[in-house]
Amino acid sequence: MPENLLYAQSGGVTPVINATAAAIIETAREHGQRVGKVYAAAEGILGVLGERLIDTDSICADDLRRMANSPGGAFGSCRYKLPAPEDGQREYARLIDVFRAHDIGCFFYNGGNDSADTAAKIARYGREHDYPIRCIGVPKTIDNDLAVTDNSPGFGSVAKYVAISILEASLDVRSMSASSTKVFILEVMGRHAGWIAAAGGLARRRREDPPQVLLLPEIPFDAERFLAAVEQSVKSNGYCSVVVSEGLRRPDGGLVSEGSATDAFGHKQLGGVAPLVADLVQRKLGYKHHWAVSDYLQRSARHIASATDLEQARAVGRAAVELALAGESGVMPVIRRLSDQPYRWEVASAPLSEIANREKKMPRKFISEDGFGITEAARRYLAPLIRGEAFPDFRDDGLPDYLRPDFATIEPRLPGFEP
Amino acid sequence: MPENLLYAQSGGVTPVINATAAAIIETAREHGQRVGKVYAAAEGILGVLGERLIDTDSICADDLRRMANSPGGAFGSCRYKLPAPEDGQREYARLIDVFRAHDIGCFFYNGGNDSADTAAKIARYGREHDYPIRCIGVPKTIDNDLAVTDNSPGFGSVAKYVAISILEASLDVRSMSASSTKVFILEVMGRHAGWIAAAGGLARRRREDPPQVLLLPEIPFDAERFLAAVEQSVKSNGYCSVVVSEGLRRPDGGLVSEGSATDAFGHKQLGGVAPLVADLVQRKLGYKHHWAVSDYLQRSARHIASATDLEQARAVGRAAVELALAGESGVMPVIRRLSDQPYRWEVASAPLSEIANREKKMPRKFISEDGFGITEAARRYLAPLIRGEAFPDFRDDGLPDYLRPDFATIEPRLPGFEP
Repeated sequence: MPENLLYAQSGGVTPVINATAAAIIETAREHGQRVGKVYAAAEGILGVLGERLIDTDSICADDLRRMANSPGGAFGSCRYKLPAPEDGQREYARLIDVFRAHDIGCFFYNGGNDSADTAAKIARYGREHDYPIRCIGVPKTIDNDLAVTDNSPGFGSVAKYVAISILEASLDVRSMSASSTKVFILEVMGRHAGWIAAAGGLARRRREDPPQVLLLPEIPFDAERFLAAVEQSVKSNGYCSVVVSEGLRRPDGGLVSEGSATDAFGHKQLGGVAPLVADLVQRKLGYKHHWAVSDYLQRSARHIASATDLEQARAVGRAAVELALAGESGVMPVIRRLSDQPYRWEVASAPLSEIANREKKMPRKFISEDGFGITEAARRYLAPLIRGEAFPDFRDDGLPDYLRPDFATIEPRLPGFEP
Repeated sequence: MPENLLYAQSGGVTPVINATAAAIIETAREHGQRVGKVYAAAEGILGVLGERLIDTDSICADDLRRMANSPGGAFGSCRYKLPAPEDGQREYARLIDVFRAHDIGCFFYNGGNDSADTAAKIARYGREHDYPIRCIGVPKTIDNDLAVTDNSPGFGSVAKYVAISILEASLDVRSMSASSTKVFILEVMGRHAGWIAAAGGLARRRREDPPQVLLLPEIPFDAERFLAAVEQSVKSNGYCSVVVSEGLRRPDGGLVSEGSATDAFGHKQLGGVAPLVADLVQRKLGYKHHWAVSDYLQRSARHIASATDLEQARAVGRAAVELALAGESGVMPVIRRLSDQPYRWEVASAPLSEIANREKKMPRKFISEDGFGITEAARRYLAPLIRGEAFPDFRDDGLPDYLRPDFATIEPRLPGFEP
């Protein structure tokens, strides 16, 4: 009797997480003699606890292909951290009940550091409680902060979006700068690490190119030095283009965006570091400015996904099923870089214990000495990740042919459960 | 002796204004026996006044093709409104001096309502002062508020960007809504008219589709009704996706984004209506929210330009030169719609006097009765404008192959001038 598989998405979604999901389902379908059904949990681990499962057999090949090229999390994701098994006996017991009720042999948890930890804990709990469920972590995060893997599926596409967006907006502000806007500020994600903001630096080929200033969480914000850099760029280039990370920090370690009572700004602000930095430029230098906050747009811009990223998102999905079929558990497929130029990579596997709860920071050697740019080492690392275009199909109406998911969940076999 | 032509960009740039510029230069090159040089003013009319002229013969065919597919204004634009001839004798005399010094027979002014007015005034002044310069207005504005023309080149691409962006971000928020973000708010441009925000409505095919709420400048903001609509959508769909125009107005006519002291909000805010609306949702409904401000990103997103828009941007450029060669002056090539379905259009010409200083508002019949959506009539009008993709070429490094302009200006023949 072939075993069933269960897939769940966790945490913030990415432009290519559905490519991973589709690869898992497709690879499982290729092994129909060994795999029974592939279920997907609605809304991540909350859907497993609530026994809200989608039978992916109901998704035709054509919809699966469209799903693979659609942003968001097709099955729904959630931000819910399972307690430790000591504190969450009830939750873990329920997970095992659900696995058992649906003959789940392997659980795929598609997420970041937290999810790797959760997957490892579930595997351990199952072993200790007479239901040896195999758990495979599947990497995903736009933040690129997963340990062990060379990079995280999802990041490359966001990096490409940010590099293109800042290049485009800079060409705009440049053309207006003689008599109008002189400073443009783009806020991007990355609360703890500057990977995404650093990717903006890929648009800068020559010293005079935009973005002339990056503001990274790794470098405490020094308003005076920042203003000097902006002024310098306006004087030499006529304008200044800035990428600021939402995670930019003050010297005291606090987030600049939460600095409602700081001396540096003195304004109450409803979130967003870009308007604060823009206001500072206005008040201290008197330059007309514009600012943008890309927020979810960057995280869902499947229309401009990186082909490299998409291929890796698919590859980790395929590898996850292959690991499961080889009887592995407590592991995650990871990207291993073989060379920068030409860029070559392969999928390896790593124990979840080496990944769980760690955070890959951007190394200092990736940040230029003045703190406002990236180094050649960073460029060598980042550049391959945004290579190649992978446009979705478009409909006649000019919009991408995205799947707008509307999956039914199967009839529950267990009583309800409130986590 | 063939005459020379002079081209200048005016006001805010668009993703396709360079396609118009390139079409003018290319069409002129095809008529080499009748046209001498095509000059482009650096930074718009300021560059004409300052005699900062670019000899476009220096742009090779390959760079011209790349320029045509690059965002921003390749020659530079400006926000500078010429005074009326009565008040600005000195400026007008200077323009004529520059035209005369460079044997300019026709001046092409690529802009919106203001520029149409300026072009008409220059033509009149030249006639009255013994230098009968021909002036052709060339339409461009993302705001779509130009009179007479069915639509404005530049708008279709921004409309496409906004419709795709809100669709993508909505798929993202939808997948997180069970346990996290429930409301997403995208701020778009359009200070006086809701054309751009209305384009977001093109992503909504069925009632339950996003964006469920549009906030347009045409409909005074009613916080209670807005909150009820958001709550309704969250209850039926699990989430709510909102597009808000920067020009959203309070019932008293003031901009919501400048409502620092209003009862409705009570927060000091550094620009941006999205964070204000988001804060209202948070305080009154308690929903977790995200917001984005697309600002220049929407106006420069050449990577996702509308093929229809690009074709029209080229067509008005070609037509402008043909009008000039036919001896016309004081006119603008305009888009005339022949049918909605199939979409057919042609380029006609209209007197600048019919276009100057008028503003095409969005008709009330384009806005749904509740004020939060668009009607079928609006959809029929808007839908063709975002059709077709026109991706730029990409380089091996994953970035679009945009021209990063660096044009030298010719040696001035006149003494300096300070406007």
